[in-house]
Amino acid sequence: MPTRKKKSARKITREPEQTRARILQAAFEEFSTKGFAGARVSQISRLAGSNKRMLYHYFGNKKDLFRAVLQQKIAERQAVASKATGNPAIDLPRWFETNCQYAGWIRLLGWESLQTENKKLLDEEERQELMNRTVERIQQQQAAGQLVDHWDPRHVLLAMMSLTTFPQAHSQMARLITGQSVQDPQFQTGYAAFLSQFSAAFVPPASRVS
Amino acid sequence: MPTRKKKSARKITREPEQTRARILQAAFEEFSTKGFAGARVSQISRLAGSNKRMLYHYFGNKKDLFRAVLQQKIAERQAVASKATGNPAIDLPRWFETNCQYAGWIRLLGWESLQTENKKLLDEEERQELMNRTVERIQQQQAAGQLVDHWDPRHVLLAMMSLTTFPQAHSQMARLITGQSVQDPQFQTGYAAFLSQFSAAFVPPASRVS
Repeated sequence: MPTRKKKSARKITREPEQTRARILQAAFEEFSTKGFAGARVSQISRLAGSNKRMLYHYFGNKKDLFRAVLQQKIAERQAVASKATGNPAIDLPRWFETNCQYAGWIRLLGWESLQTENKKLLDEEERQELMNRTVERIQQQQAAGQLVDHWDPRHVLLAMMSLTTFPQAHSQMARLITGQSVQDPQFQTGYAAFLSQFSAAFVPPASRVS
Repeated sequence: MPTRKKKSARKITREPEQTRARILQAAFEEFSTKGFAGARVSQISRLAGSNKRMLYHYFGNKKDLFRAVLQQKIAERQAVASKATGNPAIDLPRWFETNCQYAGWIRLLGWESLQTENKKLLDEEERQELMNRTVERIQQQQAAGQLVDHWDPRHVLLAMMSLTTFPQAHSQMARLITGQSVQDPQFQTGYAAFLSQFSAAFVPPASRVS
């Protein structure tokens, strides 16, 4: 672009990333509020202060955009997972708190569950691979005596995910049971404390710290 | 209807109940597949082999119909709940198996969670009342030494519901973790067996049967 001034040129080099980031953020909001089927690309570009042409330029079609959101969010989750201590009394409440902060992500998974049913997921293989790695980590902790070893590590992971995710997944049920909103800090603190104690169920008696 | 023959008259007296039941069943299918917002009354009456006029005659509007479905399903769930033994090693796998059989009900709750967010639920007070009764039952079991008594009974119920419901609620996550469909009998048997053992976490050591 030889006719532009230097300042504008710098601005333009920086812009693609910012536009991409804004579109991704808007897409996450739209997809987690309405699900893949209900989300509108026009609304996403409007939210991002961009336009459809730009959106298609950066991300291809709606499905590609959804995939980009998934990948970004999964990477964020992996960053949290990498900080796991291996001690369920710390990790379970931490996962629960993370899920409370990332309620939009849990909603996105809720839509996915309802809208894909038994069909193949977007990036199913890659996501299964990530889960396999988590299962392997549990297996190693079982072998090291940090976790009870007479259960299938896949069942252990599913139970841990159930305990830390369900209150956000069916948040109205958590409210009916406790009388508190899942967004209420008092609920979050109380349930995190319960999970910290309850998680002893995953730990062999000899390794429990009381 | 003086012009009708006796046989037709008998048929007509029996019909309202059958029509009502068919509409309720069709409504449950439509609501659990598409959620309240996505469900179409015309599709429900078509599925029921009836018509819109008849549907409105029996159930009022779409919301009233949804309420009737909720009430019917909650009554069915209460019937299962009334068979609880008080022993988590039996009750937890049984709740999980019931949820596997009533996957449509779990889907309905999933839609409700996504579509109502923090808004008031249909029949919220009545449903909260039912939950309160379940919490009271847990409290009694804690007092009787059947369940660990140093946890808030509401947290105990929420954890139990999480463990028995999440695999159906986010069924794609259960599949990513285990590599099995939640509809696969092998998954169901395996996870029920895990829950039966894991549920010991809710029971004081002195009351555990090993």
